[in-house]
Amino acid sequence: MPIDLQCVWSDIQTIKKMSPIVHNITNYVVMESTANGLLAIGASPIMAHALDEVDDIVKIASSLVLNIGTLSPSWIQGMVVALKAANSKGIPIILDPVGAGATSYRTETAHSILNQGTVKVIRGNASEIASLSGSQTLTKGVDSLLNATDCQNQAKILASRNRCVVWMSGKTDVITDGQSSIFIHNGHPLMSKVTGMGCMATAINGAFLAVNQNILFGCAHAAILMGVVGEIAAEKCKGPGSFKIEFLDTLYSLSLNEIEERICVNVL
Amino acid sequence: MPIDLQCVWSDIQTIKKMSPIVHNITNYVVMESTANGLLAIGASPIMAHALDEVDDIVKIASSLVLNIGTLSPSWIQGMVVALKAANSKGIPIILDPVGAGATSYRTETAHSILNQGTVKVIRGNASEIASLSGSQTLTKGVDSLLNATDCQNQAKILASRNRCVVWMSGKTDVITDGQSSIFIHNGHPLMSKVTGMGCMATAINGAFLAVNQNILFGCAHAAILMGVVGEIAAEKCKGPGSFKIEFLDTLYSLSLNEIEERICVNVL
Amino acid sequence: MPIDLQCVWSDIQTIKKMSPIVHNITNYVVMESTANGLLAIGASPIMAHALDEVDDIVKIASSLVLNIGTLSPSWIQGMVVALKAANSKGIPIILDPVGAGATSYRTETAHSILNQGTVKVIRGNASEIASLSGSQTLTKGVDSLLNATDCQNQAKILASRNRCVVWMSGKTDVITDGQSSIFIHNGHPLMSKVTGMGCMATAINGAFLAVNQNILFGCAHAAILMGVVGEIAAEKCKGPGSFKIEFLDTLYSLSLNEIEERICVNVL
Repeated sequence: MPIDLQCVWSDIQTIKKMSPIVHNITNYVVMESTANGLLAIGASPIMAHALDEVDDIVKIASSLVLNIGTLSPSWIQGMVVALKAANSKGIPIILDPVGAGATSYRTETAHSILNQGTVKVIRGNASEIASLSGSQTLTKGVDSLLNATDCQNQAKILASRNRCVVWMSGKTDVITDGQSSIFIHNGHPLMSKVTGMGCMATAINGAFLAVNQNILFGCAHAAILMGVVGEIAAEKCKGPGSFKIEFLDTLYSLSLNEIEERICVNVL
Repeated sequence: MPIDLQCVWSDIQTIKKMSPIVHNITNYVVMESTANGLLAIGASPIMAHALDEVDDIVKIASSLVLNIGTLSPSWIQGMVVALKAANSKGIPIILDPVGAGATSYRTETAHSILNQGTVKVIRGNASEIASLSGSQTLTKGVDSLLNATDCQNQAKILASRNRCVVWMSGKTDVITDGQSSIFIHNGHPLMSKVTGMGCMATAINGAFLAVNQNILFGCAHAAILMGVVGEIAAEKCKGPGSFKIEFLDTLYSLSLNEIEERICVNVL
Repeated sequence: MPIDLQCVWSDIQTIKKMSPIVHNITNYVVMESTANGLLAIGASPIMAHALDEVDDIVKIASSLVLNIGTLSPSWIQGMVVALKAANSKGIPIILDPVGAGATSYRTETAHSILNQGTVKVIRGNASEIASLSGSQTLTKGVDSLLNATDCQNQAKILASRNRCVVWMSGKTDVITDGQSSIFIHNGHPLMSKVTGMGCMATAINGAFLAVNQNILFGCAHAAILMGVVGEIAAEKCKGPGSFKIEFLDTLYSLSLNEIEERICVNVL
C-alpha cells in the first residue's frame, strides 16, 4: 500500500479545519517552539503537567504527547496520570523518549511509561529507539550517533514488542509497525542544528493522529510534512536562526504542489 | 473622555526612560518571548517564582504580573506571597487567568488569587473572562470560542465585582472598569497563530501600569500598542515565524506616526 | 602574552570537530536560545536538572554550566550534586550568578555553590560580580547599573579569592584571573535588548573550556566570538527580534576573516 499524496493533504486540511487540541507534557526547552509548530499547522496546543489538572485536560484533548526531555519525579507522575486518562478516553498517545540510553533514569522512565499504558507511537532518534529495543547502543547526550536505516531491526523489535508504531528520525526516517515499514527520505541536515525539531515532529504527530486513525500512515504523513518543510526552509534560510523562522512560515503556508514536488518515500 | 494619542506616546516614552522592573511569575511556554517583549519596549523584566525570593523581587519591582499558564502548587504559593507583598508595597498587579474555564484547577486558582489580594487588571480572552464572571462558557483549551464584543456584560460584571479593570482580548479588545468601556479595533488574526501574544500583552501592561496610574487608560494604551504593532508586523511578515520577529522589531522602533495612522478606538 | 587570532579560530574549529557535550542546569527563560547557541557553534547541549540523573549526565559531558536565573530549592540540589560529580571527573564548571545582589537568595546560592566545589569561571555582569566580591552594589533586577571597567578591582578580588577566572560582561568585557586581565571591546548595545545573551555567553564558554585547557584564554576566545558576532548581527538586523536570528546565523557561519576585521582586545 503506497503513500497517497491526497491523503497527506487531506490530513493537513482536516487539522486546519478541526483544530484538534493536542495535550503536551513536554520539556522546558521546546515548549514554545512546540506550541508555535502546532499553531502554525492549525492545531490547538495546550501545555499542562500538574497532577491537579492533567485528567481534566485529557478530557478536552484529541491526543496526548509525552516527552521526557527535562524530566523530574513530579512531571513523571503527571505523565502517568495523563496516560491512564487518555487510555480510558481512547485518544492516541505519542511518546518521545528524549535521551533514552543516555541515562538510566531516562531509559527506565520510558520503559515505565510503556508498561503502565498503551502508547500508539514512539518517536525518537536511532540511539533512543535502539536503546529501548534492548540493544547495546551509542548515544551522544540527546543526539544520536547511529543511523536510522542501520537500526531498522531494532525499530521493528520495539514496535512488535509494544504493539505500537515506531517513528525513528534520521537522514532517512523509518516508520514501522513491526511488519510494514515506510522510509521517508525528505529532510535536511540543518534540522539537527536547531533544538526541538524532533520534539516538534512528535507534537505534530499528535495532531495527525487526532484526525487519522491509521497510525502507521498518520505518522508517515506527519514525517513527510516535517521533511518537506525542512527542505524548503533550508533553501530559503541563511543559517539555523532563520531556518527555524522559515520552517514556521512554511508549515503555515505549505501547498499541495510543494509536497508533490519533493515527496520521496518508499514502503516495504 | 476620549483616548489621547499624546498620552499613549508619553507612556511609551516614559517606559523607555524609566525602564521599570516588571516582576513576572508566568508560564514556561512564554517566558522567553515575554522577556523579549518587555526588553523591546525598554522595560526591565525579571522572572522569579521561588518562595525564598519573591518578596525580595517585589521590593525592587514596579509591577507584578501573575500568569497561570502552566501552574502547579508550588508556583501558586509563590504567586500568593508575591501578591501580598505587592499589595503591601502598593504596586499594581495584573492577572492573566490562562485557561480559566478549561479546568476547574485553573478557574479555582484564578478565583483564589482574586480573593487573597487586590488585582488591578484581569487580562484574558473572552472564554476566560466569561468563565470567571460566572457564566456558562465555551473554551477550546487555552483558546477562546467566544467573541469579546459578545461578552461585554460578563467583563463588566467581573470588573465591578472585583473592583478592577478587565481587559478582554479578541478581534476587538474590550477594556472596562464596569462603568466606562474602551473598544480597541486594532490587531491582526496572525496574533492568534503565535503562542504567548496574550501573555506578552499582559506583561507589557505591567510596564504601562508602572508609569501610568490611571488603570483604565494604562490598559488601553498597552492594548493600542499591541494592536498597532500586530498590524504592522502582519504586513511585513510571511507567516507566524517571521510575524513574531517583525513584532519584536516593531515594538522596539514604533513611531508616533505609525500609531497615529492606525489607531482605531472608541470609548463608551 | 597577547591574544592570538589563530588560537581563537582553532578553538572554534575544534568545537565543530569534537562537538563537546555541554551539560546545562540553567533557567527556564533561556533554555531554548542557549541550546540553539550551542548547536550553532557545533557543540552538543544537554539540559538536565533532576537529582536522579545529573551525575549520569556529568559522566558523558565535557563541561558543566550552572545558571541560577530562575532558581528554586530542588534545582539548587541538582546543581550541587552535578558540581561535585563534575569536580570528581575533572571537567570545568562555569557559574552564571544571574541576579546576585538583587536578592539575598541569589547571592547566598551563588556563594554556596562556590563554597561546595571548584568553579573554573564566574561569568556575570558588573553588578553581579561586584556583589559577589563583597562590595556594596547597585543592581536593577537582573540588569547591571555598573560599568565593567569601573569594577575591575572587584573582579580581581573575586577571582583571587576563588582561584578562578572572572568574566565580567559589559560595554567592555573584563576577563581576569586576579593577575592578568584581558579587555574585549567587541559587542553591541542591542545584545542587552534580547534576553539570554549573557546566559548564552556562559554556555558557549562551556564549549570553549571543553576544548581549551587555558581557562583565561578559553574565556577570552568565547568573549571575542560573542562580541564579534554581536557586531555583525547588529549591522544586519532591524531590531531585537531579527538581531537574535542574525546572531544565530552568524554564530553558525562566522569566518576567520570576519573575526580578524573586528577583533579589538588588549591584555594587561
